[in-house]
Amino acid sequence: MLGSLPTFARLEAELSKLPGIGNKTAARLAFHLLRTSEQDVFALADALLEMRRKVCFCRRCFHIAEEELCHICRDGNRERQRLCVVQEPQDLLAIERSRSYNGFYHVLHGALSPLDGVGPDDLKIPQLMERLEQEPVEEIILATNFTVEGEATALYLAELFKGKGLHVTRLAHGIPSGSDLEYIDVGTVQQAVTGRREF
Amino acid sequence: MLGSLPTFARLEAELSKLPGIGNKTAARLAFHLLRTSEQDVFALADALLEMRRKVCFCRRCFHIAEEELCHICRDGNRERQRLCVVQEPQDLLAIERSRSYNGFYHVLHGALSPLDGVGPDDLKIPQLMERLEQEPVEEIILATNFTVEGEATALYLAELFKGKGLHVTRLAHGIPSGSDLEYIDVGTVQQAVTGRREF
Repeated sequence: MLGSLPTFARLEAELSKLPGIGNKTAARLAFHLLRTSEQDVFALADALLEMRRKVCFCRRCFHIAEEELCHICRDGNRERQRLCVVQEPQDLLAIERSRSYNGFYHVLHGALSPLDGVGPDDLKIPQLMERLEQEPVEEIILATNFTVEGEATALYLAELFKGKGLHVTRLAHGIPSGSDLEYIDVGTVQQAVTGRREF
Repeated sequence: MLGSLPTFARLEAELSKLPGIGNKTAARLAFHLLRTSEQDVFALADALLEMRRKVCFCRRCFHIAEEELCHICRDGNRERQRLCVVQEPQDLLAIERSRSYNGFYHVLHGALSPLDGVGPDDLKIPQLMERLEQEPVEEIILATNFTVEGEATALYLAELFKGKGLHVTRLAHGIPSGSDLEYIDVGTVQQAVTGRREF
């Protein structure tokens, strides 16, 4: 039906390549874009191109950046002795939003997952080890996700850091704020009981 | 946090203008686009621009088109005496997919909705009346949606057509294929009983 409209079909095909966007959503978005002002469509296309051209990854911590170093690595007021290791830039942003940390970061860009063929060299682990040689890091905070892959990555890194005289910590694992014990999964309750603290 | 990355924040803002895409999804899409090849991002941006530049609405039936007339209006093998009135181009495509109709169409681009300030002149109703003057239409099939607005639009159009000697029909209203009576809403069952046919 849309074979007679190659440009429309092509936009649908390109949109449906995006994660979480199937054929139906792609069609809905394409029809929406057909109705929005030309100016808005140009703004979106331009934003896409400009982002792809300008945004890269920080040479030091691999967070997203528009210059060689990201704004965190360029910040002179951060504690140089702390390094927080996260899986993705989004995780870094979540910690920044919490305003609870003022050190530097290292973004691994993934987690170890042997089943998917992701080993240490597919992540930014060699670059992390290199940084530890050059920077005055005292504490490493392992902030990988609390999933099987994230936990395995944290364990692997903790092994690597052994004997380097580093203080290795992990984000606290327990009951999230605002939640009801009744509805929390067994694993989290176990961790919260095992890891209980002085009140 | 992303204030330091204006191009990234701008792409997120543009993406979150799309229907059904909130801030979180926009961020996820933007991060995805950051990781896809430059070529793919260019392809998406180009598809957007090309679609917006080339796709317009058919001068006669208001379906989407790349020329003055859409491929249906240009098709000489269609029955000129039948005209099917739909709300949106997507509805037309649904009927085409059913391969059950071989006449022409008229896309209203909406339905009457006084609460939202949508009156007959906001839809392609004047253009429809004009077509009826010029084309040898014998049957008008009202295929607006079976919603309050769609039904009101169908009623309004049926009133307009009175006295014009047209055969006005409406898509059958009843139980959809593959469904279990037990789970069908009361209104649909009522319509199916009232509109029962000889077996």
